[in-house]
Amino acid sequence: MNHDARRYFALPSPFAMKRGGELHGARVAYETWGELSAARDNAVLILTGLSPSAHAASNDEDPSPGWWEAMIGPGKAIDTSRWYVICVNSLGSDKGSTCAASINPATGEPYRLDFPELSLEDVAHAAHGVVNSLGIEQLACLIGCSMGGMSALAYMVLHPGSVRAHISVDTAPQAQPFAIAIRSLQREAIRLDPHWNNGHYDDGDYPEAGMSIARKLGVITYRSAMEWNGRFARIRLDPEQRDDNPFGLEFEVESYLEGHARRFVHTFDPNSYLYLSRASDWFDIAEYGNGSVMEGLKRIRIKQAMVIGVSTDILFPLEQQEQIADGLRAAGAEVEFVALNSPQGHDAFLVDIPNYSRAIGGFLGRL
Amino acid sequence: MNHDARRYFALPSPFAMKRGGELHGARVAYETWGELSAARDNAVLILTGLSPSAHAASNDEDPSPGWWEAMIGPGKAIDTSRWYVICVNSLGSDKGSTCAASINPATGEPYRLDFPELSLEDVAHAAHGVVNSLGIEQLACLIGCSMGGMSALAYMVLHPGSVRAHISVDTAPQAQPFAIAIRSLQREAIRLDPHWNNGHYDDGDYPEAGMSIARKLGVITYRSAMEWNGRFARIRLDPEQRDDNPFGLEFEVESYLEGHARRFVHTFDPNSYLYLSRASDWFDIAEYGNGSVMEGLKRIRIKQAMVIGVSTDILFPLEQQEQIADGLRAAGAEVEFVALNSPQGHDAFLVDIPNYSRAIGGFLGRL
Repeated sequence: MNHDARRYFALPSPFAMKRGGELHGARVAYETWGELSAARDNAVLILTGLSPSAHAASNDEDPSPGWWEAMIGPGKAIDTSRWYVICVNSLGSDKGSTCAASINPATGEPYRLDFPELSLEDVAHAAHGVVNSLGIEQLACLIGCSMGGMSALAYMVLHPGSVRAHISVDTAPQAQPFAIAIRSLQREAIRLDPHWNNGHYDDGDYPEAGMSIARKLGVITYRSAMEWNGRFARIRLDPEQRDDNPFGLEFEVESYLEGHARRFVHTFDPNSYLYLSRASDWFDIAEYGNGSVMEGLKRIRIKQAMVIGVSTDILFPLEQQEQIADGLRAAGAEVEFVALNSPQGHDAFLVDIPNYSRAIGGFLGRL
Repeated sequence: MNHDARRYFALPSPFAMKRGGELHGARVAYETWGELSAARDNAVLILTGLSPSAHAASNDEDPSPGWWEAMIGPGKAIDTSRWYVICVNSLGSDKGSTCAASINPATGEPYRLDFPELSLEDVAHAAHGVVNSLGIEQLACLIGCSMGGMSALAYMVLHPGSVRAHISVDTAPQAQPFAIAIRSLQREAIRLDPHWNNGHYDDGDYPEAGMSIARKLGVITYRSAMEWNGRFARIRLDPEQRDDNPFGLEFEVESYLEGHARRFVHTFDPNSYLYLSRASDWFDIAEYGNGSVMEGLKRIRIKQAMVIGVSTDILFPLEQQEQIADGLRAAGAEVEFVALNSPQGHDAFLVDIPNYSRAIGGFLGRL
């Protein structure tokens, strides 16, 4: 049994990047679930957030649970007995796709900071290439979560007619200054770590402190104060679990963040993190609408959409989902706007499975 | 002309700390404005947030603007032609009071991490000592802003009868997990900076990167996303102001944070920052009420209070001010609760002078 479910799509070479520069011999990794119909009209593409791989769910080749395991499978909200589901690892991510940690064929060394500037439009183009290579002219549905929601907007505006229906999950039509500030600080924590060494680290000399701070700050902004009041309150660790100094781990919430950071560092290439993070800052659908978000969204031609957001999301606030819904509606799509009150904040789509299943499963069921 | 308006109060020696340990020969710095009445019944004490000094406003001895300049002076909201105003630099802060950077008389060397664990109760006791030393038995009003609001609650619960009226500004009756998480991450950024060197830095080898990250994270949580949408949107720096690399300063909001950080580092002792930050995590009025915030607040005996909070404050959310108002009311005080919609977040008390002047000036005028 082959435990690697990953397949690879070789990008056209050279692959020109939006902001300049090009990649030679680049590829993106993807996985699939279900069967493509004879008419090739049942494909659902999922574009991911900043860190997930293409392994969104278990499959025969790789039975380990995926990052959206509870949502994808036979009889689940994204029902693989009906849909042919594709999940692509973003170009620039280190989970099988070409990224800053890949070998630059021009030098035989890793790109590191010589990787060209990455945009979510490049991520979208690469994903569109995968879909095309599978002989699919039009997706039945394009689902984008978090950063992937921005990549999805890029996909639809750059490839008119390539998508019938769209599900937008906890995302934004452009980065707002609060989100830019948070990401900028995450990047700064990595870049100020001496072990980052201007991109020239290796696994034995890895910017662990910087990545740890970046991840903790991510987790703080992915969740919500409301959830934590109920979950952690002011609970302390048992004395034997505590550090011996007044600034060490004492409260449960500190230990929770530490656990998240430990599981994250060394599983993500720091330079790739920097590139994807900056790409998120740069994305702005208004570039396609003469500086207007609404006009940019109005250039997207799809039939139906569901736009989901959460009132406790501080990184991609609900008003931004409403903008997307309004824009797609103004563009002529039939749009359902779902405002959830999940306490988990931005990460609700990974945690509040009942509400997201109901919304997404319901929408897909009506297609 | 003497440009130092600071006066010093020598704490009783030894000065026992709440969490254990004691200080010998310690002092706190303070400044005053206005004249104490013959009956000594017109004193207003201000307890500050984490970083400000006792120089809340200009005075004859030091004409430089103070941190609450617009609020304090003749005819201003805190009217120094009527009130005798005192502002104390918190014990543990490095603006003249004994702190981790002070010389430990037992060794002749700076305390650094040998400074005993600091609590806001210690800060409150020290401030109460200043007031007593001025011959004042009861404050006409105790004003506490941010961390100083928590110190003020400690002051009132530990010194019954010492305060007639109270103004609570953008604070909390206990630290919630979101605020603990943010502060924990700020401390981690400092502690992970190799230049921190377990507290053994000096000004030539100062943990600038860690302090910069801590300050930026502070500023992000002191302001609000809403304000920044209006103020910065996605405005870019002029090309000649930008860094040459894709991760350098590009957006106005990044430059704004950088400016704040540059003005902050080297003006604050990192170890003192750690101590005051942790003291804020530890404070919990529920300790005085058998684990109940409400019961803790009910032990405070004052006549009148005004409790002010801001709907955009993510660090000390409005619900926490409402808790304070409810608790003081249940304790028998006449309480006005003022919920402002200032867009500036936690820092509104420093910025939205019209609204804060109206509230505070109105309340003091009615005393």
